[in-house]
Amino acid sequence: MRISPEIDALITRLARLPGLGPRSARRAALALLQAPETRLQPLMGAMQQAAQTIQTCPECGNLDSCSPCSLCADPQRDGSVICVVESVGDLWALERAGMHRGRYQVLGGVLSALSGCGPEDLNLEGLMKHVEQGAVKEVILALGATVEGATTAHWLQEKLAPYPVIVSRLGHGVPMGGALDVLDEGTLAAAMSSRKAL
Amino acid sequence: MRISPEIDALITRLARLPGLGPRSARRAALALLQAPETRLQPLMGAMQQAAQTIQTCPECGNLDSCSPCSLCADPQRDGSVICVVESVGDLWALERAGMHRGRYQVLGGVLSALSGCGPEDLNLEGLMKHVEQGAVKEVILALGATVEGATTAHWLQEKLAPYPVIVSRLGHGVPMGGALDVLDEGTLAAAMSSRKAL
Repeated sequence: MRISPEIDALITRLARLPGLGPRSARRAALALLQAPETRLQPLMGAMQQAAQTIQTCPECGNLDSCSPCSLCADPQRDGSVICVVESVGDLWALERAGMHRGRYQVLGGVLSALSGCGPEDLNLEGLMKHVEQGAVKEVILALGATVEGATTAHWLQEKLAPYPVIVSRLGHGVPMGGALDVLDEGTLAAAMSSRKAL
Repeated sequence: MRISPEIDALITRLARLPGLGPRSARRAALALLQAPETRLQPLMGAMQQAAQTIQTCPECGNLDSCSPCSLCADPQRDGSVICVVESVGDLWALERAGMHRGRYQVLGGVLSALSGCGPEDLNLEGLMKHVEQGAVKEVILALGATVEGATTAHWLQEKLAPYPVIVSRLGHGVPMGGALDVLDEGTLAAAMSSRKAL
C-alpha cells in the first residue's frame, strides 16, 4: 500500500504509546490529520508545553512543572509520613484516593533480576536523607502486590530497620465493588486474615 | 489532586483521540513524559512533519503529502474504475486488502439525517467530473452495510443512472475466519443468496 511516509511515521510513533496498537494508532492518526485545527495543533501545543516545563522533582521523583514539585513544596503536607511508590502513575492513583496527606518517594522501578533493576537504580536519596535527619516518623510501602514489589518492600524494610521509623504497607483484601467468586485464593486468604470485628 | 496544569492539558488532549479514554490517556501521557527523548520528541516531530506536509487530495479526497495524491498520480492505476468510500480509513483498509487497482473517491461522510450530512456535504466533485467526461467504466460503492451507507449507495446509484457506467457494490457474506453461529441473520441470509457453485 502506498501510504505517505509522513503518515506512516506518525502511526508508528503513536503505536508505541501504551494502550495503542497498530490498529488504534491508525484511527488516532486519521482523527488527528482530519482535524488539524481542533486536534493535531492543540495536542502538539500541549506536548510542546509539557516538554518545556515538566521536570522530575529532585526531592521525591514526581513529575511537575515546578521544582521541587507542588507536593514537596506544600507546607500543608506532612513531611514526617512518606509513601514509597514505584512510579508517578502510582502516585497519581494514590492522590486520586485522597487518603495520604504526607509526602511521596517515587522509586522509578522495583528490584527485578529480569529487568536488571538493582538497589542502585532505585531513587531513594530524598527518602534516606529525610530518614537520616530524623524527620520521618512513618514510611508507607505502597508497592504492588507482585513478587518484585514484595522483594523491594522487604529490602526497604531491612534498609530502614536501623532507624526509629514505623514501616507499614498497604492493606490487602477484597477490592471495593469486587465480587468474591472472581477473586483469587491469595486475595481471599489475605482478606480473611485481615478481617475486622464490627 | 494537585497535578500540574501542563500534564493535565496533555492528558485531556490525548483523551480526545479515538480509542483512548481518561485512563489510557494518563498512561500515555506518563509514558511520554518519562521518556522525553525517545517518545515525546519523536512523536512531536512526526506530528509537526505531518501537519506541515499532509493535505487533502483535490481529486479524490485522500490524505497525502503530494497533491494530487500518490494514488491519483499513479499511471499504473486504472482511472476507469473508481471505488467510492466513506473515509480515508476505509481507503486504507481496502488498500491493505490489495484487490482494487483503480482509483478512489473519498466522500468524507455518508447521508445521515441524524448527523445532518446531506448530499451537498459529500465530496463528489472529482468522481462526477470523471463520469461526465466519460472516463469511468465502473463505480464500486464500497460503503458500510449500515442504514446510512445503504441510503448513500442508493442515492449515488440514482445519481449515476443517467451515465453509461456500471455501478457495483461490495459482496455481502460470511467474513473470512468467521464462525457461523456468531453471525447475525442478515449476514447469513446475504451469504445464502450469494452462494456460489463449486
